[in-house]
Amino acid sequence: MMLELGKNARTAAKLLAQAKPEAKNSALHAMAKAIRASQAAILAANAKDLETAHGKDLKASFVERLTLNPSRIEAMAKGLEDIAALKDPVGRVTARWTRPNGMEISRIAVPIGVIGIIFESRPNVTADAGGLCLKSGNAAILRGGSDSFHTSRAVTACLQQGLKEAGLPLAAIQMVETTDRAAVGEMLQGLGGNIDLIVPRGGKSLVARVQSEARVPVFSHLEGICHVYVDKAADLEMAKSIVVNAKMRRTGICGSAETILIDQHADHLLKPIISALIKSGCEVRGDAAAQKADIAVKPASEEDWSTEYLDAIVTLGLTNGVDGAIAHIAKYGSQHTESIITADPATAEKFLAEVDSAIVLHNASTQFADGGEFGFGAEIGIATGKLHARGPVGVEQLTTFKYQIRGNGQIRPV
Amino acid sequence: MMLELGKNARTAAKLLAQAKPEAKNSALHAMAKAIRASQAAILAANAKDLETAHGKDLKASFVERLTLNPSRIEAMAKGLEDIAALKDPVGRVTARWTRPNGMEISRIAVPIGVIGIIFESRPNVTADAGGLCLKSGNAAILRGGSDSFHTSRAVTACLQQGLKEAGLPLAAIQMVETTDRAAVGEMLQGLGGNIDLIVPRGGKSLVARVQSEARVPVFSHLEGICHVYVDKAADLEMAKSIVVNAKMRRTGICGSAETILIDQHADHLLKPIISALIKSGCEVRGDAAAQKADIAVKPASEEDWSTEYLDAIVTLGLTNGVDGAIAHIAKYGSQHTESIITADPATAEKFLAEVDSAIVLHNASTQFADGGEFGFGAEIGIATGKLHARGPVGVEQLTTFKYQIRGNGQIRPV
Repeated sequence: MMLELGKNARTAAKLLAQAKPEAKNSALHAMAKAIRASQAAILAANAKDLETAHGKDLKASFVERLTLNPSRIEAMAKGLEDIAALKDPVGRVTARWTRPNGMEISRIAVPIGVIGIIFESRPNVTADAGGLCLKSGNAAILRGGSDSFHTSRAVTACLQQGLKEAGLPLAAIQMVETTDRAAVGEMLQGLGGNIDLIVPRGGKSLVARVQSEARVPVFSHLEGICHVYVDKAADLEMAKSIVVNAKMRRTGICGSAETILIDQHADHLLKPIISALIKSGCEVRGDAAAQKADIAVKPASEEDWSTEYLDAIVTLGLTNGVDGAIAHIAKYGSQHTESIITADPATAEKFLAEVDSAIVLHNASTQFADGGEFGFGAEIGIATGKLHARGPVGVEQLTTFKYQIRGNGQIRPV
Repeated sequence: MMLELGKNARTAAKLLAQAKPEAKNSALHAMAKAIRASQAAILAANAKDLETAHGKDLKASFVERLTLNPSRIEAMAKGLEDIAALKDPVGRVTARWTRPNGMEISRIAVPIGVIGIIFESRPNVTADAGGLCLKSGNAAILRGGSDSFHTSRAVTACLQQGLKEAGLPLAAIQMVETTDRAAVGEMLQGLGGNIDLIVPRGGKSLVARVQSEARVPVFSHLEGICHVYVDKAADLEMAKSIVVNAKMRRTGICGSAETILIDQHADHLLKPIISALIKSGCEVRGDAAAQKADIAVKPASEEDWSTEYLDAIVTLGLTNGVDGAIAHIAKYGSQHTESIITADPATAEKFLAEVDSAIVLHNASTQFADGGEFGFGAEIGIATGKLHARGPVGVEQLTTFKYQIRGNGQIRPV
């Protein structure tokens, strides 16, 4: 059954790769319309999932994410319309040059093919991921968490309704209609060469499983241990504002800061920054100097420095200038997103050059690590791997390229 | 020992990522000089390898590739100087834009990190691959075939001499100093996270092993089953010239054509093309129509259509126009390189758009599938995978990118 799904996706992908932008956009609009029209059916399916969920011993945050209401359904529909409004990423000419023999070489963006999305029980991922794959000309195979099975199925029905109205193949967006975990294993093996890329969306254990078992390329980030380094040349008010925003705006997202590093030559910054964090409701765990600076600072263990809290907790320590910060980040970081606060341009450029992370910022919050904030529109995730996609993965990163060469009879000399 | 090699490479990669173009180029020139100065030592090492090789039952072509002489040594040195002359691929700003809140986002090219190259007994790959990795700011771990062990070691010594003279870390280019095959397995596992990419260089069995066992990304092509499709609207002289060049210029390279497809509506083209191939010394295996057109055509088996001959043999058959050709290529091809010969622009554009290969050509020979012919300078290989690199892999494709964001205090609103 899974292999059949893969073959159908491959066939659909071939048609999608040639689909006109108008056809894809009209499908996205029809999907949004179908979602709005099916609000009652989606809520009924969601109620069924929630009933089962309540019988289990699930975390409140998990159930909260699973729960739909009219405004969340409207957000899904609106999200699809936003994707329709994006520039079509397929067919872009990303380079073009002429060879001395007259051949013209163009590098043009083409879809990747078939993308498998494995996600936990967040119903909105069904619409988001399906829409982004369609916009970028890829077929999608969606495998959501078993706890959102009925909701996902109801949403997928709306997506397929949109495909149908636009005359696109239904297999462009398929849902794995089984909660059997073996299906995930089959997807990770690539369904007989019929999956080109896997994108996991969910917690660390899901991502870790996908990364360790997948036999096809994966776009993912295991965790975001993001750092803010406050240099001695930082403006205090800016530093406080960015540190508190980077940590506390939303603590549960991967771009939230987990460690604050402060230049050991900046005694005047240490106390006020700690105070600002504590005042914002954050628990601060620190090294000896930080503990000495403020009695409310708890001791940080070695493990704390590489912990993604996703909560109102932060680790804070001193480093020997920007070099110390760069070394600390190389040792404990996750190559996701790091920021330096300084008024010294040379120090900033050193940090931006030497920190080996997907996103490096100067005088701005790590919470900008987001496709929407980059201007990409929606994102399918954030990648900390180094190949193909890095940072927020929007529709452009869901394409690859091919070389088209136009000649007039050129043969290669001996 | 292998783990140590990986750690040293990682440390070197950090330094290389920040190395100035001048330092890298001066190392490349010093390497070339050292290779020329060490001609006697390299030839002596090569003689040792050849002596061992002659005791084994090796193919003549294998021994031929293993054999060095003064002109081949000079070509190695010249190759390194050519790499020095290429534009530095690191630090290129590939995109830059400003967000409404004033943040400036730049996407800049950075090295990938550590690249493992696993190759058969071709001594020139040592210098080529080492030079390309250095130019792109990557550390290289070279694992050559055991039959060229002494030669590779002598060449590596010259590369390290160049690194030393330029003040770059010796671990920027390391050779695996064991012929134990387990070392390859360790590399394929990534040496504890210290290899970011593997590039295999060699025959199909080597590439197949790397593709099936590697736990890190691989740039490779298993085979090049390249097609030339001759449309009914093709100019006969151009078709003959390109078909013969695509197949016969060099039969042993991956871009040589293995299958010729001819429009079934082009009776006037069939016989002359077959005759031209046979006259050039090529064995033609064909379908019933081809056999009927020329008595010298041998019957093609089902297997022939997906065989990479790498020899003066070609499979030739008729298809129902360009649609038939596209379908045939999707079924039997290897997504490497395909060409259409036609004077009809619409037919050409259809082929260029719908054939899902790394390189698609119109009215030009498939033998142009080569980094040098693209203007990339030397290439480390050709990739038929879809992610990151596709087609010839030159120094630009050996880089990745990161986002640098420059702000002035921006925090993300709630």
